[in-house]
Amino acid sequence: MAQLRNRQWLLAARPEGLIKESDFRWNEAAIGSPADGQMLIRNLAFSFDPTQRGWMSMDTYIPAIPLGEPMKAAAVGQVVESKHPHFGRGDLVQGLLGWEDYSLSDGKGLFGLQKLAPGTDPLLALSLLGITGLTAYFGTLDIGQVKAGETFVVSGAAGATGSVAGMIAKIKGCRVIGIAGGRDKCDWLVKDLGFDAAIDYKHENVRDALARHCPNGIDVFFDNVGGEILELVLARLAMGARIVLCGAISRYNEAGMSGPGPKNYFNLILRAARMEGFLVFQFARRYPEAIAQLSQWLAEGKVKNRIDLAQGLEHAPQTLIRLFTGANVGKQLLKLADPQ
Amino acid sequence: MAQLRNRQWLLAARPEGLIKESDFRWNEAAIGSPADGQMLIRNLAFSFDPTQRGWMSMDTYIPAIPLGEPMKAAAVGQVVESKHPHFGRGDLVQGLLGWEDYSLSDGKGLFGLQKLAPGTDPLLALSLLGITGLTAYFGTLDIGQVKAGETFVVSGAAGATGSVAGMIAKIKGCRVIGIAGGRDKCDWLVKDLGFDAAIDYKHENVRDALARHCPNGIDVFFDNVGGEILELVLARLAMGARIVLCGAISRYNEAGMSGPGPKNYFNLILRAARMEGFLVFQFARRYPEAIAQLSQWLAEGKVKNRIDLAQGLEHAPQTLIRLFTGANVGKQLLKLADPQ
Repeated sequence: MAQLRNRQWLLAARPEGLIKESDFRWNEAAIGSPADGQMLIRNLAFSFDPTQRGWMSMDTYIPAIPLGEPMKAAAVGQVVESKHPHFGRGDLVQGLLGWEDYSLSDGKGLFGLQKLAPGTDPLLALSLLGITGLTAYFGTLDIGQVKAGETFVVSGAAGATGSVAGMIAKIKGCRVIGIAGGRDKCDWLVKDLGFDAAIDYKHENVRDALARHCPNGIDVFFDNVGGEILELVLARLAMGARIVLCGAISRYNEAGMSGPGPKNYFNLILRAARMEGFLVFQFARRYPEAIAQLSQWLAEGKVKNRIDLAQGLEHAPQTLIRLFTGANVGKQLLKLADPQ
Repeated sequence: MAQLRNRQWLLAARPEGLIKESDFRWNEAAIGSPADGQMLIRNLAFSFDPTQRGWMSMDTYIPAIPLGEPMKAAAVGQVVESKHPHFGRGDLVQGLLGWEDYSLSDGKGLFGLQKLAPGTDPLLALSLLGITGLTAYFGTLDIGQVKAGETFVVSGAAGATGSVAGMIAKIKGCRVIGIAGGRDKCDWLVKDLGFDAAIDYKHENVRDALARHCPNGIDVFFDNVGGEILELVLARLAMGARIVLCGAISRYNEAGMSGPGPKNYFNLILRAARMEGFLVFQFARRYPEAIAQLSQWLAEGKVKNRIDLAQGLEHAPQTLIRLFTGANVGKQLLKLADPQ
């Protein structure tokens, strides 16, 4: 039986440096009751994404989360009571919901709520077949424009998006080199995922390793990290290279993300190369195509979906912090409950 | 009658900071005599381009110019004696030649020499219909992908490439804002070239001016300057913006071009935007198309070709320095002689 109270994590402070548990405040409130046009959703699982730090800090592609309101996350929930014309009791829904047991929603708001097919696995919908996998898909194929025989480097390679990006590049015939922190992660990339090589940035000289693994330069760089690794890649671009800017987790903990920019950006001219950012939402009309393709690759064993699973709402802040300390391998999720 | 000696400017030192006349050494040598497969060329006019500082400093897309050898420039010359099967006496040729009265060439080397049609105006061939105009053409259309109704901003707008880029964007229906140093340059852009607005970075607050002139953000930025102006533009990008990296003259005087990178590059993600470098040589197969189109626009008065003309080989170093102090308006050339 569900709780009679709605447990919540409210945003208590704009983060400075590494996110701290004290940036959130535990709260217990009455469970809301839907007004006309609303529904009450029981939250089943939350996604954890580096971009959430941005939402805590400032207006980005969405307005900053207001202090005192529940922290937001990509989530899957189940409708338990509905006064909404298009959603009924028992429906599985996906979208931005709060770090709380129950959320009230009108289905609109930021990007809106999508209904999931009955029987959908919430954890799969929040990982390979969700924003994570879609970001890897469109970033690698549409922004990166990977071609067979090219040298593809990905940073944050053992993370959720990076690992999928590398596997997709591998399917497309690239030589794939992952950069990750720690021997275990690197072993996983090479032995389990079939990467051609992995560079352990915590224990290797990345400059030398890139020179060794990419003797003809780097054709595509899928960047989740920014900072020094981006500089080193910029110094080794092949002619016509593409840098896919997916994230810059090394910078997110700096105030206002005001760390130094890539001074080697001038190599974009010398190598006739480009650096391109994207937001997966711009490809929304093509999500069905991508989900179908990713599902097929998963069924064929060409892509693996590794989930790093936490349990229990009380652990949400510590689970988010794992992303920024590099503790997770694969997609970081937190499960609250099973669908009924 | 031509000189009996070959006057030359040899590269004497790798530049540090602003180029100095003492980075070059005046020399007088015997005029060479062509061996089989070679020709002797009388140089008629030199182009001055910011990229030449790179050639003086280090290996770029061409090897660094060796110390003690003539400084190189894009130039037009005329064959005065030929033992080359494809070039004859009187032919006009264009390519990389030395800062000297006479150059020996086998027609190969860096990018090779191209034969110009008889009667070609050397000054036009080195400005609008040369690398300068071609760079503006492909940068604006192919890299910038300008569309009617978009807001187009160009830095170094009163320079050779920037002014042409702005005129092309105007032809394509963009709102065009130029950034240049000084009231005279800005007046020229608006009154003579038809730019919608110009920002005098020496006397205006560029941030405020960009906000005023680009209320809906910047769709395309054609960057010749880099540095602080690039930062300010990155902070005002429209969704889906394109930054055309043509140059970064504000950085060229720094040792190793090691100045700070654009810390606002992260906005490329938030605005799903891209920053792309290019080398005009990658479009070499399409030069005829571009030259035909630029010639037509020139004939129709839609594009103007302003040349800032110096005279006499002895002034070559001071003429190059003009680029970096922002003294030139339009294309900086130096004329040595008329074709015979």
